[in-house]
Amino acid sequence: MDIISGTYTDQYQLTMAQVYFHNNGTEQEAIFDYFFRKSPFDGGYTIFAGLENLIDILEGLSFSKKDINFLKAQGFDIKFLQYLKEFKFSGKVYSVLEGDIVFPARPVVRIEGNIIEAQIIETLLLNILNFQSLIATKASRIRLAAPNQTLIDFGMRRAQGLGSYHASRAAIIGGFDASSHVMAGRDFDIPVSGTMAHSFIQSHEDELTAFRTFAKSRPNDCVLLVDTYDTLKSGIPNAIKVAKEMEANGHQLKGIRLDSGDLAYLAKKSRKMLDQEGLDYVKIAASNQLDEYVVKSLLEQGAPIDVMGVGTSLVTGKPDAALDGVYKLAYTKGKARIKLSENKAKITLPGKKQVFRLRDDQQQLIGADVVTLEDENSVHEMHHPFEADKSLKFSDCQQEPLLKVVMKDGKRLFKKKSLKEIQKYSKERLAELPIEYKRFDNPHIYKIGLSKNLMNLRNTFISEEKKKTL
Amino acid sequence: MDIISGTYTDQYQLTMAQVYFHNNGTEQEAIFDYFFRKSPFDGGYTIFAGLENLIDILEGLSFSKKDINFLKAQGFDIKFLQYLKEFKFSGKVYSVLEGDIVFPARPVVRIEGNIIEAQIIETLLLNILNFQSLIATKASRIRLAAPNQTLIDFGMRRAQGLGSYHASRAAIIGGFDASSHVMAGRDFDIPVSGTMAHSFIQSHEDELTAFRTFAKSRPNDCVLLVDTYDTLKSGIPNAIKVAKEMEANGHQLKGIRLDSGDLAYLAKKSRKMLDQEGLDYVKIAASNQLDEYVVKSLLEQGAPIDVMGVGTSLVTGKPDAALDGVYKLAYTKGKARIKLSENKAKITLPGKKQVFRLRDDQQQLIGADVVTLEDENSVHEMHHPFEADKSLKFSDCQQEPLLKVVMKDGKRLFKKKSLKEIQKYSKERLAELPIEYKRFDNPHIYKIGLSKNLMNLRNTFISEEKKKTL
Repeated sequence: MDIISGTYTDQYQLTMAQVYFHNNGTEQEAIFDYFFRKSPFDGGYTIFAGLENLIDILEGLSFSKKDINFLKAQGFDIKFLQYLKEFKFSGKVYSVLEGDIVFPARPVVRIEGNIIEAQIIETLLLNILNFQSLIATKASRIRLAAPNQTLIDFGMRRAQGLGSYHASRAAIIGGFDASSHVMAGRDFDIPVSGTMAHSFIQSHEDELTAFRTFAKSRPNDCVLLVDTYDTLKSGIPNAIKVAKEMEANGHQLKGIRLDSGDLAYLAKKSRKMLDQEGLDYVKIAASNQLDEYVVKSLLEQGAPIDVMGVGTSLVTGKPDAALDGVYKLAYTKGKARIKLSENKAKITLPGKKQVFRLRDDQQQLIGADVVTLEDENSVHEMHHPFEADKSLKFSDCQQEPLLKVVMKDGKRLFKKKSLKEIQKYSKERLAELPIEYKRFDNPHIYKIGLSKNLMNLRNTFISEEKKKTL
Repeated sequence: MDIISGTYTDQYQLTMAQVYFHNNGTEQEAIFDYFFRKSPFDGGYTIFAGLENLIDILEGLSFSKKDINFLKAQGFDIKFLQYLKEFKFSGKVYSVLEGDIVFPARPVVRIEGNIIEAQIIETLLLNILNFQSLIATKASRIRLAAPNQTLIDFGMRRAQGLGSYHASRAAIIGGFDASSHVMAGRDFDIPVSGTMAHSFIQSHEDELTAFRTFAKSRPNDCVLLVDTYDTLKSGIPNAIKVAKEMEANGHQLKGIRLDSGDLAYLAKKSRKMLDQEGLDYVKIAASNQLDEYVVKSLLEQGAPIDVMGVGTSLVTGKPDAALDGVYKLAYTKGKARIKLSENKAKITLPGKKQVFRLRDDQQQLIGADVVTLEDENSVHEMHHPFEADKSLKFSDCQQEPLLKVVMKDGKRLFKKKSLKEIQKYSKERLAELPIEYKRFDNPHIYKIGLSKNLMNLRNTFISEEKKKTL
């Protein structure tokens, strides 16, 4: 699946780019910050995902002949189109590492380049990072609810069209084990998984025949779907029959799957029926409208489910459906820039910035990131972004810089990470976060602080702009 | 953007396909129905979208060398892979026409083919049709709320990744005028639209300089974003200044855009300020978290907004995020098939079926579709699907068959329709639907009836299956 075209953007990026081009924009340095304002699902953290894809796309971004012809027909001018023909992203990218936990209102990615290229890539960057971070976060919540179960993404059929592709990738980052999505499996090295649908049962003379046919064809990887007609009266008894036949041939039934009805009740009853026949090795898989709340409730009821298939709610990030990430200008023409708003929380942070994560002398997270100007190597106090009287001094905190250079001159700087490596890193970073930040209801708030320099810069801007409009 | 690979599917489709292949599946005819169970957004109708894309993809569907190698590594067997190497979809597709209004629990698409190909395409079909129908329906609701405004899709940045591509297409089918999505514009012949972002203003010394620079570069297509610092104290006064300068040069400012604050209040104030300066030709565009409810409320308050930019809620189909479409086996090996469920509404309709839309002798919709077995050319009574005592006789109803052959032997039968044609058709079909079915709260329910033959077939199945499990 190939989206490496400069036309994967909003029209206004190109409209503005042309105006910049007319005004010597190729020589105008600009810095943009990517950040979001609210963690999804009313949760206490967000898993940052999509970076590796973004880097790949930025490395290859260009305008094809077809693109140029289309833009010509839109009335873009010839000189600008000539520029686009040769277009390559040549900027620098600073980013939090993929899989890390991130929080609202502080930079997650910083783009430096000329203002034309930095503007053109805005939509693409938002489109990739907003969505994958949403889904990785959802997956991580489901993983929290089911720490010991096998979790499989079944969402493709009700995913938002081609969004399914990166959704399956992001689900792995958030802690899922496998996906049903074959193409995502092929391209992202995700374990793929899937056995049978109701149609398979229906297409045979009866359920038992269907089970036998399937078991014969897949003696070593046989999971039987037991709810086509009647789970306890037909599905499980037939599955037991086939399991015994498989045993007689030296094989083992791998599992049964429940896809309707009261999953807690049916799982318990099924487990008992299987165990009574000595089939305690047969796993129970469940699917049907699962999300982190249903999963949590099932396990709290003691439902003996080994494998969970999660679909729509995972891959569409229900109920939020979007992360509210934005991309804001922080610096250009040698000067920091700000965007004001009547809503204080929407005032941007000006200048070239770094974000530090604080740990105490025991290496434990203290629950705050500090945003500084880039040239501040270490800070010893932080200020509340909007309450002038709130500040905190600290002396012996460990300060980890979160924004790392990942692209320079339009080229990737480090070896591409495998999805497994990113998943592992994500797990480690999330494990550092105390449980209070991870609970589903009213999670603890991970704090943001500004360095004194950054706060002063921002306050100066606010009062200057206020003067202008008086 | 290219998804024409057989791996764009769920793994279990291929797992089942291999078992079918081992059991002479290439010779086994199968019929599947695509339908959904609930119209999205608690609405009274759904706009059917995605068909033309589906036909294109089915025509080209194949497994590449890369696909085959991947599947080989998954353990699929050599003979089956040999079959997949040569795979072409050779089936027949019956469908409601794209853009039509459709309703729950009756077939929207019917696929006929051998059971292997019909199974492999399931996920792809669901993925494409569920999503585009969701978004076209959302767009149509926003269009209902704003019948006379220009509606532009601005959603790409918070769309679900690559889902943005077909979302923009579906938005046009539902009645939108344009999109900001350049690639979708290029590939689907959608008018693209977009002018400037806050960053453009911020990147200049001040707002007035930014406006002037933009106006100079785009004298005939200049829309100024007025809320970067202070809409009424700075944005509008500066826009008026530039508009006058443009007039002096023989040009006209096209519009101003509001993107924050109380849009109703700001639009009224802005309109007044513009009109007082004789700038009544300058249009007002508004964006920021719009959906059908906000749009309706703005217009009810008399907000003089000419152009609405709708983003996240449109392209992600909030709050539903998915249409619950399914794909169920209805016929194979010369026999009708049924899927039972404890939930009556989930029992499928067996057999090869047609759907008729009923109109009275004045050509008005009477508010019901009748599902029949395929060989019934005309019916004169319909039965409630689950309440045996409810039926309706009719004599002189017009009966329009909705399922039309659109592919045969894996080939498209008719000329591809342009998006504009589909949009026009959709508008006509929706116009037929009385207003009671279109209201947002508790809409009237468009009825479904079964022909006597279909009802009898289904009842026979239900009692047979019940006997089996006693």
